[in-house]
Amino acid sequence: LEALLKFKGGMKIEGSTKNGLTTQFDSFPVVGGERSAPTPMEVMLHALGGCTMLDVISILRKKKRQIDDLTILITAEKSENHPKVFTKAHLLYELTSPDAELKDLERSVELSEATYCSVSAMFKRSGCELSFECSLVRSQAVGN
Amino acid sequence: LEALLKFKGGMKIEGSTKNGLTTQFDSFPVVGGERSAPTPMEVMLHALGGCTMLDVISILRKKKRQIDDLTILITAEKSENHPKVFTKAHLLYELTSPDAELKDLERSVELSEATYCSVSAMFKRSGCELSFECSLVRSQAVGN
Repeated sequence: LEALLKFKGGMKIEGSTKNGLTTQFDSFPVVGGERSAPTPMEVMLHALGGCTMLDVISILRKKKRQIDDLTILITAEKSENHPKVFTKAHLLYELTSPDAELKDLERSVELSEATYCSVSAMFKRSGCELSFECSLVRSQAVGN
Repeated sequence: LEALLKFKGGMKIEGSTKNGLTTQFDSFPVVGGERSAPTPMEVMLHALGGCTMLDVISILRKKKRQIDDLTILITAEKSENHPKVFTKAHLLYELTSPDAELKDLERSVELSEATYCSVSAMFKRSGCELSFECSLVRSQAVGN
């Protein structure tokens, strides 16, 4: 796997994959940034949520459950001293579905966190404590 | 720190900060994605390079060195089994400057990696072996 990072002036940085898919970064005005894009540590939380959400989507689809909406709210704490690594992160998953049960969501999250999610595994191995919470919103099935 | 992840259909996911700065994710067609954005693990490499590059930019500016261009090429390896965490990453920094010396870049990278870079620290603590290489391209000073 390869990644290329490019300085774009100020504190702006663009990351790109080999085939040109990009991620934008910037920093805060106090250090010369314009706050036009998330910081790398903010993006780390996005990658954490994105990785486990991809697993959960795949697992729910294998179970033939309909996903009307799915969100993850992450609340995280960082170390006060350098390097300011994440020490704790709580992930609240909320699924909106006409046919999934709460236990379908909980089982998907467990499988992601225990087996598949590479980013969660890296967070945990780095010493960050992860915790999880699941919530279900019942939507109407189409045609009912 | 808070992050919100939202399902956007298919395998598309958007991460956002509290003030609405976003990161886009997608996956490969083989798992139902459209490859419209990087995967979470690709974004992890972008965050790694973005984090250390912000440090290097700040340190070079404190040394009053001019940055005409700065890139980091990351080459990484992942575990073959689930969870497919990064096991190795090599970072090649290339600075284009009319006045910086190679040792200015090397010292900036050392400081970032040893002390400041939170993402590098999380990679290392997770068991990923990081290695570094620095390269300098001499540009003409303006007015010379």
